Amino acid sequence: MAELPAPHLLFLGDVSNPLDAKTAMGLRDWRPERCVGQCRLTGCVVDLGLPEMDFSAAVTAGAQSVVIGVAPSGGALKAEWVLALSDALSAGLSVVSGLHRKLSEEPMLVAAAAASGQQLIDVRVPPASIPIASGRQRSGKRLLMVGTDCCVGKKYSALALHKALKERGVAATFRATGQTGMLIAGGGIPMDAVVADFLSGAAEILTPDAAPDHWDVIEGQGSLFHPAYAAVTLGLLHGSQPDAMVLCHAVGRTAIDEYEDYPVPDLRECIAQYEQAARVTNGQARVVGISLNTQGLDDAGALSACDEISSLTRVPCIDPMRHPLDPILDALP
Amino acid sequence: MAELPAPHLLFLGDVSNPLDAKTAMGLRDWRPERCVGQCRLTGCVVDLGLPEMDFSAAVTAGAQSVVIGVAPSGGALKAEWVLALSDALSAGLSVVSGLHRKLSEEPMLVAAAAASGQQLIDVRVPPASIPIASGRQRSGKRLLMVGTDCCVGKKYSALALHKALKERGVAATFRATGQTGMLIAGGGIPMDAVVADFLSGAAEILTPDAAPDHWDVIEGQGSLFHPAYAAVTLGLLHGSQPDAMVLCHAVGRTAIDEYEDYPVPDLRECIAQYEQAARVTNGQARVVGISLNTQGLDDAGALSACDEISSLTRVPCIDPMRHPLDPILDALP
Repeated sequence: MAELPAPHLLFLGDVSNPLDAKTAMGLRDWRPERCVGQCRLTGCVVDLGLPEMDFSAAVTAGAQSVVIGVAPSGGALKAEWVLALSDALSAGLSVVSGLHRKLSEEPMLVAAAAASGQQLIDVRVPPASIPIASGRQRSGKRLLMVGTDCCVGKKYSALALHKALKERGVAATFRATGQTGMLIAGGGIPMDAVVADFLSGAAEILTPDAAPDHWDVIEGQGSLFHPAYAAVTLGLLHGSQPDAMVLCHAVGRTAIDEYEDYPVPDLRECIAQYEQAARVTNGQARVVGISLNTQGLDDAGALSACDEISSLTRVPCIDPMRHPLDPILDALP
Repeated sequence: MAELPAPHLLFLGDVSNPLDAKTAMGLRDWRPERCVGQCRLTGCVVDLGLPEMDFSAAVTAGAQSVVIGVAPSGGALKAEWVLALSDALSAGLSVVSGLHRKLSEEPMLVAAAAASGQQLIDVRVPPASIPIASGRQRSGKRLLMVGTDCCVGKKYSALALHKALKERGVAATFRATGQTGMLIAGGGIPMDAVVADFLSGAAEILTPDAAPDHWDVIEGQGSLFHPAYAAVTLGLLHGSQPDAMVLCHAVGRTAIDEYEDYPVPDLRECIAQYEQAARVTNGQARVVGISLNTQGLDDAGALSACDEISSLTRVPCIDPMRHPLDPILDALP
């Protein structure tokens, strides 16, 4: 992946669902030193708490690029955003995008970039040559995040677990599988943009042979229970051959986001189904912990929610953003 | 999909695994009136039983196109084949391909087609604009083939069930999900070539709203137990929202083809896992029959293999290529 011009201005468009702004939030939370401000269009209800800036103010503040920080379902690029991003290019910012729709497919942006000498950088581009999965067992160990739904905290859990492993002195690598993770890590493979036949092969090359005690900590994608995205989840699961999984869940999430007719199964059922699916390629795979996103609860409520889930599932449950990660690290094989 | 120039010469390259020649066999068996002969390179051990022809003999016999009848794992186009297909173009045949690798990406073929005025036709091309799956329940009924492995008879089972339903006077449509099915049916979506995020959405548009008593009979893909292709299987399963499934299996297949370390699970386990996965999008989904490929057995052996599986699974089991299909049709909801 190309080096990204930094620091960034985070573009939020006009989104109304905070879950759509996860790219911007991820950069703010994990790479704050690279984020100088936010830019919002009329109607946007998401606020990152960063300084509000227009494009010329961002340039004055030192920004080198504007990052599209929102990813609506389907990854389209709205016409109003194209207009705004053209202005960003003219003001002297490169544009970075993780959407399915490519910047280079927008003639207005191509023209504005050419005129201003700025770059258009699409990160949701899989490698050119991905093999069909071989199914071969690889050396090293792998820890994969799996989820009850999209947007429950899989990426944050992986980043936090990776950080905690490194703090313990364990050799570990964070493996990004989506556009936000790639922007944070500076590399990875956007699994959902891979042609279906090559999904598991992509997961295999993302997590190659490694030293026996090295851990790949792999960002998860989607959910086996999601009516649109479960295929991505399964391809990643089979190709990454995880030795261990952490089930990520958001407190109070009883239905799939934006698919209210689709219930989130009981957590014990989720564990059983993930372990069953993972055992196709790794007979030892098991869920070693639950990462609970307790946003909205107070400290006592968060602790009690985790305790309740631990008792129900007999698996350690913590919120990686507010609790020590040791119960999960200690459970790794 | 564009109209295909017919009749065809079937090109077998130099393949040594008969399972790789399923495109050629499918056309020979289901569209014999469109197949004038076969063309094989040195080393090819597959024989379709069609007249052996070189390209100029095929043109004399009336052939309008050469169809690449083989699909090695990964869908690559070998250099020796490109040379041979250039000669076919020069001899006056168009070239039709269902491989991942596009004919239009081979400069030698592009030049030969331009010089001879013949066409290069790639059928493994998904529609340009596929929506993210909505998960909405659709009207009409759907019957999906699922499998213990690739190359066990899912396409033949779907075609045979479709034919048998029509013979009973039931409104039914065969829905092709792979290149061979598309060549036979003249339409469909190559599921394995769809970008992963859009897999279930592709299956939804392939099997749209229909009359309440209309059956879509859907060609299956891969297997939930395949280390490389299970994602394609699951995306198709979720998007097609089948009311009924037929589990396809080949007698004696105890391991995944070309992945000998991967066992085929017990058939009762296969049924349970397919029903579990299908219920994410259709709570009524169930396996109503087993289609057993009994190739290599005599008639008595075939009957007894089917009886044994019926007794084990308590689901009707037949070989659609040699037995009446009524036990499965009668079990449809």
